[in-house]
Amino acid sequence: MSMKTAIQPTRSKDYPQWYQAVVQAAELAETGPVRGTMIMKPWGYALWELLQSYLDKEIKKRGHDNIYCPLFIPLSHMEREAKHVEGFAKECAVVTHTKLIEDKDGKLKPASPLEEPLIVRPTSEMIMGELFGRWVQSYRDLPILVNQWANIVRWEMRTRMYLRTSEFLWQEGHTAHATEKDARKHTKKMLDMYVDMCQNMLAMPVIPGEKSENERFPGAIETMTFEAMMQDGKALQLGTSHFLGQNFAKASKIQFQDKDGQMQYAWTTSWGTTTRLIGGLIMTHGDDDGLVLPPKLAKHQVVICPLLLKNSDHTAILTYCQELADSIAKKSLDNNHIRVHIDTSDKTGGEKNWYWVKKGVPIRIEVGNREVTSRTVSIKKRWENHKAQTMPIDDLVDEVQGLLEKAHKTLYKRAEDKLFEKMCWCENTTELWAHFKDKNAGFALTYWHEDNAIEKKLKEELAVTVRCLPYKTLLNKAKSGPCFYDNNKTGKLAILGRAY
Amino acid sequence: MSMKTAIQPTRSKDYPQWYQAVVQAAELAETGPVRGTMIMKPWGYALWELLQSYLDKEIKKRGHDNIYCPLFIPLSHMEREAKHVEGFAKECAVVTHTKLIEDKDGKLKPASPLEEPLIVRPTSEMIMGELFGRWVQSYRDLPILVNQWANIVRWEMRTRMYLRTSEFLWQEGHTAHATEKDARKHTKKMLDMYVDMCQNMLAMPVIPGEKSENERFPGAIETMTFEAMMQDGKALQLGTSHFLGQNFAKASKIQFQDKDGQMQYAWTTSWGTTTRLIGGLIMTHGDDDGLVLPPKLAKHQVVICPLLLKNSDHTAILTYCQELADSIAKKSLDNNHIRVHIDTSDKTGGEKNWYWVKKGVPIRIEVGNREVTSRTVSIKKRWENHKAQTMPIDDLVDEVQGLLEKAHKTLYKRAEDKLFEKMCWCENTTELWAHFKDKNAGFALTYWHEDNAIEKKLKEELAVTVRCLPYKTLLNKAKSGPCFYDNNKTGKLAILGRAY
Repeated sequence: MSMKTAIQPTRSKDYPQWYQAVVQAAELAETGPVRGTMIMKPWGYALWELLQSYLDKEIKKRGHDNIYCPLFIPLSHMEREAKHVEGFAKECAVVTHTKLIEDKDGKLKPASPLEEPLIVRPTSEMIMGELFGRWVQSYRDLPILVNQWANIVRWEMRTRMYLRTSEFLWQEGHTAHATEKDARKHTKKMLDMYVDMCQNMLAMPVIPGEKSENERFPGAIETMTFEAMMQDGKALQLGTSHFLGQNFAKASKIQFQDKDGQMQYAWTTSWGTTTRLIGGLIMTHGDDDGLVLPPKLAKHQVVICPLLLKNSDHTAILTYCQELADSIAKKSLDNNHIRVHIDTSDKTGGEKNWYWVKKGVPIRIEVGNREVTSRTVSIKKRWENHKAQTMPIDDLVDEVQGLLEKAHKTLYKRAEDKLFEKMCWCENTTELWAHFKDKNAGFALTYWHEDNAIEKKLKEELAVTVRCLPYKTLLNKAKSGPCFYDNNKTGKLAILGRAY
Repeated sequence: MSMKTAIQPTRSKDYPQWYQAVVQAAELAETGPVRGTMIMKPWGYALWELLQSYLDKEIKKRGHDNIYCPLFIPLSHMEREAKHVEGFAKECAVVTHTKLIEDKDGKLKPASPLEEPLIVRPTSEMIMGELFGRWVQSYRDLPILVNQWANIVRWEMRTRMYLRTSEFLWQEGHTAHATEKDARKHTKKMLDMYVDMCQNMLAMPVIPGEKSENERFPGAIETMTFEAMMQDGKALQLGTSHFLGQNFAKASKIQFQDKDGQMQYAWTTSWGTTTRLIGGLIMTHGDDDGLVLPPKLAKHQVVICPLLLKNSDHTAILTYCQELADSIAKKSLDNNHIRVHIDTSDKTGGEKNWYWVKKGVPIRIEVGNREVTSRTVSIKKRWENHKAQTMPIDDLVDEVQGLLEKAHKTLYKRAEDKLFEKMCWCENTTELWAHFKDKNAGFALTYWHEDNAIEKKLKEELAVTVRCLPYKTLLNKAKSGPCFYDNNKTGKLAILGRAY
């Protein structure tokens, strides 16, 4: 690492400010004109496109079709499922007019008030429910498996780019099934898909588990989550998969005739992930020099920086770089050609280097006259340090796929090590309160008997929530044991932590 | 053609009703809960995805990056470019509240009024302008070339699915250039890209040209359009490319220091196409049996329908179908593997056949016991007629790519022939008025000296508009000549017609 870091402040100095500085330095986003909104800039949007392209294929492989439902929901439709509305009413953008007119002073003001206000979708359960109600008649129509890529609006009070914005992009899957068993199985299947995505694309270890009743999606019977730990020890919920039981089917009359001719309500699920994945990516892998990209999410996996001296002939260098780029682009990572870019800008070598460091490009290659003459390259690996390594051009071409694979594995392992370093077993209240004295304490693993009062106390005194009841055992603990709060009661294995 | 058609009414009986019936029969869309909105169903959304995937590559090939800007625009930002606002103010959805509360009767009502109302984007020129204003400092920052895939809201009075809906999906490109010449060149380049897309993907002949002043985009100096003719003779504007001059640069202060150190305003462009392309596709190729898909836009280019008799063993037929599907899927069309689907539903052979006829699948293949025994297939081509043709299985596999290419060419040629059949040269007012007596009259080609009064008269008396001043000559006419309205004046070659 260089002594002077590219990002100020550093992580240890001020983590939230470091985060904003990385978003800016890597040109991922800037704030929009409306409070809490953001503009996704090319380098940030490219991350979303790569995630989207991967996830869209995975969703389709599992039998879903994409559809598109309207942005606006009539107010009266929101009212049908009481719990659901309660959960969203406080954060809805409401359209009340459909025209603008000029007042006496030439200022624009809203006109043509709507008879019934429209809600900008905070999620699409209600509209999908209505749709499914029309589509489903017989057990032969089930299951219905659809997905939608869309923008969502929730009027959040505290916003932060890529973590919580008033408008965000997501995918939302919605399904209806004939039996409870099928629906529950599907909910888990989609959670597993997300966990695989985190491992395969984002190089992020996550803990999948069940949400406590308090943390469930409004109207859900069960909410499955996958939680990651950021470098400051805080949890980030990256997405959820909900088993909705028959709640939405009853509200929207999704009924079908079963094989015996009996009318039944369907069982529905929904599941989604958002642009928040990018926030998680930044905070999992980023360092004090900026973004660090896992190779499969890098728009440019390799950037070649020719050292173009002023007033000299660049032909030989540029030809050499193009030859190198062409050879690398023929190689593949995960069945995709390796994405390589030549930076021909008129920046100096140092400027080019730091530009791509901050953007997190996995492999940077410097080519000057010396490299051309000796048919070598000077490479720097973003996931290791900034020390240059010289190697013959042919060796690099042979090894580039292996290097990128190694980058992915290294980032995953590093994040996993951090996660377990910062996960602490807490036997009782004393240990738990002691653990969370540290502002940057990581997760606490403990046994908890599902009790609202304890959750409330944790939140009020420690700003800690139950992140999930993990599906797998952790730290070799059994799945249940004496509750940390009251040893006479049996609790379930639970992850507790502060969260974004 | 069968005597009894799958779609009622037929095109000749009631064209608008035929259109709605095709949208329904092919399961392309259904109406949404809010007036003028629609739900894009799987078969319709798949068309959009295929168009999007093609167009996204073409846009990126031309140097653009994708970004994402917010849905909401503060009212005050709309006011900056007067002409632009005037064009959109009448059709804007306005967000005025950000919360819902329950009233005394338990009914939800809007709360937390915003100090400044927000406009749901009817287009993003103003927000992009602001962005470019921040991004551009020096001539080195130019050109800026970005594109956005987004949903758009315009509160239209008369809506029709896939042609004019209150909310629609589109791509909008926005660019800023250092010189007028560069910007004008880019505007044309993007128009050319669209025209190629219509020919290559949609098999649609279109007429590219310039819009008259009255028909220009609010705030544009020049609007380029590409217009297609539907089977009822009406024009459909499929997209536009605008040269915006320095209007938006001045409103948003997009200024840069040129090579000589002088401050200059940038020159901007914008261009877009929408889900309306799907409406155009339906009305160009559809027939009285439903949708007819050009192969490159078909989710399934080949559908295999096994004839599965009840109470018999299906193993041999299904194995044969799978073998056939695997062989076809190895073949390619335009570097994409041919998309083949086996319909294993429990419908009868006739039901399966008509289901895929209505959905417009290019090639349907029927496989029964007879075909398995003789190693043949029975194929039906959607672009010809419904007569089955028997051929050896190996021949079909060898010929399938050629057949799909032929389907594309045939559809294009058929649409082009119709376009020129229904394009009539009109020398003067008498001929023009006579031509448009027919409700389904196609285009009139004539010379017109750009005069508002004539346009007004055409609109009022004939419901006809100037569709464009075509860039290429048509019907071997010179680019200018004596105006149809006043022979003493010189007019430009112009396409006149009724439009959607």
